[in-house]
Amino acid sequence: MDVVGLGPGGRDWLTPQAAAVLAAADDIVGYQPYVARVPVNPRQRRHGSDNRVEAQRAEFALDLALRGRRVAVVSSGDPGVFAMASVVLEAASGDSRYAGVPVSIVPGITAAQAVASAAGAPLGHDYVMLSLSDRLKPWDVIARRLVAAADGDFAIAIYNPASQSRRQQLIDARELLLAHRDAGTPVVIGRAVGSGEQQVTVTTLGELDPAQVDMRCLLIIGSSQSRVARDASGTPRVITPRRYPG
Amino acid sequence: MDVVGLGPGGRDWLTPQAAAVLAAADDIVGYQPYVARVPVNPRQRRHGSDNRVEAQRAEFALDLALRGRRVAVVSSGDPGVFAMASVVLEAASGDSRYAGVPVSIVPGITAAQAVASAAGAPLGHDYVMLSLSDRLKPWDVIARRLVAAADGDFAIAIYNPASQSRRQQLIDARELLLAHRDAGTPVVIGRAVGSGEQQVTVTTLGELDPAQVDMRCLLIIGSSQSRVARDASGTPRVITPRRYPG
Repeated sequence: MDVVGLGPGGRDWLTPQAAAVLAAADDIVGYQPYVARVPVNPRQRRHGSDNRVEAQRAEFALDLALRGRRVAVVSSGDPGVFAMASVVLEAASGDSRYAGVPVSIVPGITAAQAVASAAGAPLGHDYVMLSLSDRLKPWDVIARRLVAAADGDFAIAIYNPASQSRRQQLIDARELLLAHRDAGTPVVIGRAVGSGEQQVTVTTLGELDPAQVDMRCLLIIGSSQSRVARDASGTPRVITPRRYPG
Repeated sequence: MDVVGLGPGGRDWLTPQAAAVLAAADDIVGYQPYVARVPVNPRQRRHGSDNRVEAQRAEFALDLALRGRRVAVVSSGDPGVFAMASVVLEAASGDSRYAGVPVSIVPGITAAQAVASAAGAPLGHDYVMLSLSDRLKPWDVIARRLVAAADGDFAIAIYNPASQSRRQQLIDARELLLAHRDAGTPVVIGRAVGSGEQQVTVTTLGELDPAQVDMRCLLIIGSSQSRVARDASGTPRVITPRRYPG
């Protein structure tokens, strides 16, 4: 059984390894919008599910594999980053019935890399990958990690900054970071990156408006060394240099 | 001009976008072993350089682009992660001669993702990407970031853990982390990942032997929540769950 990263968008970012694994699968399992991104193959069965049912989805996929089906569980981005790889491996190791099912992880381009590449090189030096969702971890763990990221002067890629119902986390995160980091710190808002509706906005921590951020967004907060250059067309390019002053 | 990520290894991880950009280039510029990974095309000129001459390499590439050549600067992994994207954008913004050269970044699978996927899902939750090299930043910044990563209980992907001449950093980093994190914390050592000589070893922070680590290695240190499961064949799978206890 394979857990496969589709990358953040179209076929341009799907690796040959992922494409080959998908083509060879009997069953495609995943959150419905991700399954919909896999080209239809009449030989295959497709099993789209709701979001937030990761554990059931993993067991469903493992049950199919136990019955001899060749199963690909699909994630957007990289399955190893805030996605299905850990869920499937937890399910596989949590039930001795699944002990005989080999699980392979097929990496993909992450949303953070996609947003970074569109904005320049904001993750060009040490950085943190942090989910702001408190669905699976308490807010005080998130707050502790934000403060640690600020203490370390890391650039920060923020996953799941907000949803329709989760509006407070980003407001609080911005306040926490402003206590440690300059209001002029560059911030990248990547929205629907890799899709036809991609939008990449460069702003600052001081001017960041949490009301403009939704669940299709990924944020990158610069370190103290990040800066914005403009190319000839006036497009802002965020750069976090590899050199750190001594 | 494009700055292109080759991914960590063979063609299996080269995205269609990267392959298309490489095929369209007139000139391939980069550290010699990376240039050597691009299939030879008699129409193209290839410019391999030594390591540690990143700024000169970037200016050389920008000069070629100024002369009307279509240039691809290649990096292993992702050019936006400890690689050429920030170097090229710094050079481009640092000299008004280059203002008219548009620079695009083409992302690639990172070494950290490749190692993680081979080991299970050690980066399945919040994590830090940190270079241990003190070539471009002072050790006290590295030490401060290690302590911050430990304070935040992040999993940690460590780039450039050692070289022939740099042997002390990993010894010191292990000591620093052991002051905060259990000796039983899972550690993944990925060596030459994506190449024919790939080796992935799972050990613990207490048993990690810095003498076994060289410049072809990337390390992943687990968080307090990371654990090792074994599949039916006895292969260790490192899992960092998405759920964090409250």
